[in-house]
Amino acid sequence: MKQVLAAALALAFLTSAASADPLPSWTEGAAKTRIVDFVETVTDPASPDYVTPAARIAVFDNDGTLWSEQPAYFQLIYAVDRLREQAQDDPAIMEQELFRSVLESDIDAVMEAGETGLVEVVMQSHAGPSVGEFIADVRDWLETARHPQTGLPYTDMTYQPMVELLRYLRDSGFSTYIVSGGGIHFVRALSDDAYGIPTEQVIGSTGKTRYEFNDGNPILAKDAGIVFIDDGPGKPVGIDGKIGKRPIFAAGNSDGDLQMLQWTSAGDGPRFGMIVHHTDGAREWAYDRDSPIGRLDKALDAAPESGWLVVDMAKDWQRIWTGQP
Amino acid sequence: MKQVLAAALALAFLTSAASADPLPSWTEGAAKTRIVDFVETVTDPASPDYVTPAARIAVFDNDGTLWSEQPAYFQLIYAVDRLREQAQDDPAIMEQELFRSVLESDIDAVMEAGETGLVEVVMQSHAGPSVGEFIADVRDWLETARHPQTGLPYTDMTYQPMVELLRYLRDSGFSTYIVSGGGIHFVRALSDDAYGIPTEQVIGSTGKTRYEFNDGNPILAKDAGIVFIDDGPGKPVGIDGKIGKRPIFAAGNSDGDLQMLQWTSAGDGPRFGMIVHHTDGAREWAYDRDSPIGRLDKALDAAPESGWLVVDMAKDWQRIWTGQP
Repeated sequence: MKQVLAAALALAFLTSAASADPLPSWTEGAAKTRIVDFVETVTDPASPDYVTPAARIAVFDNDGTLWSEQPAYFQLIYAVDRLREQAQDDPAIMEQELFRSVLESDIDAVMEAGETGLVEVVMQSHAGPSVGEFIADVRDWLETARHPQTGLPYTDMTYQPMVELLRYLRDSGFSTYIVSGGGIHFVRALSDDAYGIPTEQVIGSTGKTRYEFNDGNPILAKDAGIVFIDDGPGKPVGIDGKIGKRPIFAAGNSDGDLQMLQWTSAGDGPRFGMIVHHTDGAREWAYDRDSPIGRLDKALDAAPESGWLVVDMAKDWQRIWTGQP
Repeated sequence: MKQVLAAALALAFLTSAASADPLPSWTEGAAKTRIVDFVETVTDPASPDYVTPAARIAVFDNDGTLWSEQPAYFQLIYAVDRLREQAQDDPAIMEQELFRSVLESDIDAVMEAGETGLVEVVMQSHAGPSVGEFIADVRDWLETARHPQTGLPYTDMTYQPMVELLRYLRDSGFSTYIVSGGGIHFVRALSDDAYGIPTEQVIGSTGKTRYEFNDGNPILAKDAGIVFIDDGPGKPVGIDGKIGKRPIFAAGNSDGDLQMLQWTSAGDGPRFGMIVHHTDGAREWAYDRDSPIGRLDKALDAAPESGWLVVDMAKDWQRIWTGQP
């Protein structure tokens, strides 16, 4: 009798596991169906489009794809907060016009200074500590800082549907990587807790790191200077450098992801390209072709002919943020 | 009865698995015992020195640690072979003194030209193809090329005891990485077949790679120019960039591995540093402090106080190569 009961319980568990919805925050409809169909196809050993687990590589942009990026990249907000602290200890920082205007008028001034301004602020504010100290500092900031408009902790503004998608892919034998234009150490400070992605599966822009023996207590120190920009054509280069395999699944939200999407889609066999389209001005922000942050223009034009799924956040997502009140 | 039989079989299997020697090519003695003790300690949940699987990161140098490196790095022999082919198509190559002398007098001339000469020959010979073409070319070469002294295919000159060690560590829940001064694409051409290490666990020196859209057939092209030298202090930097965790186990054979060994050993908790000492002039090559290839001097001096195991190849290894005749 016990055995029959155990068997019945096991069967019930299996049935329930099979029928549980892996993507509950996705609206029932075409977008969700396409994702599930793809995953079921590449994991079905009987399918001609079966893909071995070792080749199930999925890559995700971070800013605007896994969490919000308005009114400015969250890392930039961190950089300005940190610059403000540095200026208290080192008044010379305020003598530099860019930094002074940034600290006086907040992040709008960085945006006006364009990419060069952004890189300078990030470099100045990130240089100095060891890698370990830097990551600890970012984690402290993530604990205490609040988004200027929503009042939420930044890690509450990760996208619930994408967190579900990451988990679904991993449960289906995929390796999930972040391929971010953001700094590699910044993203690593949150990737495991926020997305279940360990440090070795984070690819990002990389500053100079210097090894110091330090009298037998070696450290890796963060220097000023950038050695790799993981954006645009840098994304396929970063993927090759870190993974050495062409992904079969790529998700992004801006023109900075165009080349990653192209590179992924051009491989043989089944491929999935996804663009998260910010269409929800009520629950998040609505922007695409004219936005200085996360501009989506060329990649949106390329989507139909490339067969990429354009996710309509307003329509396809039942819920936006993991920490939605 | 069937159940009793099954239980007995299971028990027999478990007993046999537990008593099977994971390192049969290692001589019974202190070196082998230290390795096994370390692995058993960090994998024992009851031990105060237990390490979770996610933190069981092991890093290995390649040249001189996982395969031979005499009379010159095998990648350099490949580079000269490739330069010779290129010179047939492009006579201008022979007009450059370094390249002409290399091709006329073989690799001795490269060694005389020092590291600059080595880098120039490798850059010239490796630039041009796509990453995929390059890896295919290296694999062709590995199939057909033979070592000038042993007559063996180069991949037969991988070290059997180290291949066993890699497998033993993986079977014990470790992630095994190669951290090589050699080129990342060169090492990836053989890492999976030779060592069971997939491309995403290979860290190496990296040349410029350029993304080209190529009319909808995107490629990653190998350009001349080096962006990262994974040697000496570059090794901890490469480990941080790719893995983002400090290894608990590191193995090398030369001063180029000194900083990787320091970085690994300086972490908290149990740590294992290993130096493969080339002491076997009869079965392989005997060299250390005075060798232009694989010089082992400072790291050998640092070994005793650092607690690193110095493996005496002549004494500690019953067998040298995987393809030993």
